[in-house]
Amino acid sequence: MKTVYMDHAAATPVRKQVVEAMLPYFDEHFGNPSTVYDMGSRIKHVIDEQRATVAELIGAKAGEIIFTSSGAEANNLAIKGIGLARQKKGKHIIISAIEHHSVLNSARFLERMDFEVTFLQVDQHGLVDPERLSRAIRPETILVSIMHANNEIGTIEPISDLSAICREKGVVFHTDAVATVGNIPVDVNELNVDLLSLSGVSLGAPKGIGALYFRNNLRLMPLIHGGIQESGRRAGTENVPAIVGLGKASELAAQELPHKAEHVKELRDRLVTGVHGRIEQVKYTGHPEKRLPGHASFCIEAIEGEALVFMLSQKGIYVNTGSACASKALKTSPVLVAIGVPPDLAQGSAVFTLNGTNTVDEIQYVLDQLPVAVEKLRSLSPIWRTKTAA
Amino acid sequence: MKTVYMDHAAATPVRKQVVEAMLPYFDEHFGNPSTVYDMGSRIKHVIDEQRATVAELIGAKAGEIIFTSSGAEANNLAIKGIGLARQKKGKHIIISAIEHHSVLNSARFLERMDFEVTFLQVDQHGLVDPERLSRAIRPETILVSIMHANNEIGTIEPISDLSAICREKGVVFHTDAVATVGNIPVDVNELNVDLLSLSGVSLGAPKGIGALYFRNNLRLMPLIHGGIQESGRRAGTENVPAIVGLGKASELAAQELPHKAEHVKELRDRLVTGVHGRIEQVKYTGHPEKRLPGHASFCIEAIEGEALVFMLSQKGIYVNTGSACASKALKTSPVLVAIGVPPDLAQGSAVFTLNGTNTVDEIQYVLDQLPVAVEKLRSLSPIWRTKTAA
Repeated sequence: MKTVYMDHAAATPVRKQVVEAMLPYFDEHFGNPSTVYDMGSRIKHVIDEQRATVAELIGAKAGEIIFTSSGAEANNLAIKGIGLARQKKGKHIIISAIEHHSVLNSARFLERMDFEVTFLQVDQHGLVDPERLSRAIRPETILVSIMHANNEIGTIEPISDLSAICREKGVVFHTDAVATVGNIPVDVNELNVDLLSLSGVSLGAPKGIGALYFRNNLRLMPLIHGGIQESGRRAGTENVPAIVGLGKASELAAQELPHKAEHVKELRDRLVTGVHGRIEQVKYTGHPEKRLPGHASFCIEAIEGEALVFMLSQKGIYVNTGSACASKALKTSPVLVAIGVPPDLAQGSAVFTLNGTNTVDEIQYVLDQLPVAVEKLRSLSPIWRTKTAA
Repeated sequence: MKTVYMDHAAATPVRKQVVEAMLPYFDEHFGNPSTVYDMGSRIKHVIDEQRATVAELIGAKAGEIIFTSSGAEANNLAIKGIGLARQKKGKHIIISAIEHHSVLNSARFLERMDFEVTFLQVDQHGLVDPERLSRAIRPETILVSIMHANNEIGTIEPISDLSAICREKGVVFHTDAVATVGNIPVDVNELNVDLLSLSGVSLGAPKGIGALYFRNNLRLMPLIHGGIQESGRRAGTENVPAIVGLGKASELAAQELPHKAEHVKELRDRLVTGVHGRIEQVKYTGHPEKRLPGHASFCIEAIEGEALVFMLSQKGIYVNTGSACASKALKTSPVLVAIGVPPDLAQGSAVFTLNGTNTVDEIQYVLDQLPVAVEKLRSLSPIWRTKTAA
């Protein structure tokens, strides 16, 4: 059976060159970078090279990158690390209502530590309004965290407008760029952010590696305490093979990004046009233009997203419903609720995230199979029968 | 040049079978275990199998294992997770004076959260006295953390005696077993502990993976907040290849442990006897019998441990001085200070940690080279000249 994988926001296969780059660090160059002999210092040097490569991808300096075990850990380190380090200045933070669970629940943790958290509403496309952010900032606000792009609806936030407001008011600004790094150009100076989280997922790097960019000399309470690895900001023996994998993936991403973005945008547009032409009563969620190039998200009337995902997977098509992390935790997506999608319609969420390896033929196959699956599900739906009979 | 690696506590090469087991999970079975389609659930099933294998190695149940990114993260999760979850019962915790930095600095973090921490002194062999622990427990004590074995001096603590006291008094007991799992039999029921940290290092698993055992239904504040992975106790997409690696390494360790322990003990005893026969003024640190079988640690009068490590590495011999994590942070080892080694003598620390792959020939090579290096360093030492002239 044909396999068409369009759930790259949830996971991507690790690229062959990336695995090959990692392999020698499992058994040949296996030493602990903290040891004082040459075997250790050679590996320390390799880590520093990767740090520079990852930094370069986002316009940062090597010394501004902390390697973490995931994007989620980077988000936790940013939110809690800044919150706990700056709490003497104030205990108010602001995040958007559509942040990833790792940002949202880190903020909830701070609430338990007597912080106040403002959850900024977004418009019907998922955009945060700079004016609204400006009004929400108080003298005791120490941190604002707004994601670069949302994985569920693809919307890209106006980060540089938002960060400019924070810069002016002396508030630290963090962005969760897990959905963007590797998919669109990301430059920490253009974005003008103080902290930025990324993960290897969109880069074809392995699971188990992420990074936090932090502007030099920003004080941060470590999340994992212990030894002095990562300049004392993240303890634990460095995950050398995964760091090498992230470095290699970053190098490849830097070369391929322009072409990849163009390619997936073309496929995505073809998919969206096709869906609208073939299926009635479909809402395209997220911003129509300000969105990730390879991202298409729909809410399909009178179907259950999970059932659709399951049916498509029987045809070898892999897509998502809601966000990857939340999929088993929640029935109604908080992101879709935040942009005003009615709960019933929100049940019919289907998210397609493309990668450079997807093809026009694959899009065609999806456009052949998707309407069949939707029709089948609708034929079983009492809601649909009522609607269409009316 | 011959290479003799005897720093297995700092890092071990990942075993060939382990790398092979991991490989398909980078690109072939790359899906996100949280996704609802079959590709995801198959990988979820693989993770559960690994969880059972790791659990079996320590006599636990699969549902009692949380995968983490390192032993250090497991220690942080245990200390902060229990501390923050149980603080309404009391804000006093007890750790030994020779804990790993990840335990020590997690306790220091709790001190900043208004906890009180008692650092239990140890005897000249590094042993914690159960009587002393019993006296230190107060009504507001919520957690005791004593390591299973110390990596720097090899001493194995009387965990079941210590945990029995805590069990009786209703205090949660955690042990950092990073140094023991894979080196000696470890059974959570015999040890009678509530939580136990392990890492892949002593098992020949890759870097970037560890685990925390927690007795069922123990409440724990997550360290990494976000999605509901690891039963809601540790967020972030599961590091599938590394989890598979830890599983495979655990399976091999369970088979090989008895033979390995006997083999490294024999080599270690040969090394210790040889060192005492060939070098004068050497102190064997840690407990003479209650210690890790492949562990030998010395303080050598009138030399600098770092210089010795460097000289030996020129001969292809890789050993450690002090603990791996602390080696660059501190001049005098707090562990050696805690067991009463005079600071001058503590400078001359050399730690040998053996593995099943080491051989009698390698021990002989070390016994040939070590006295030469020590003599050379001593010939340059004014302290030594004064001493021997006296």
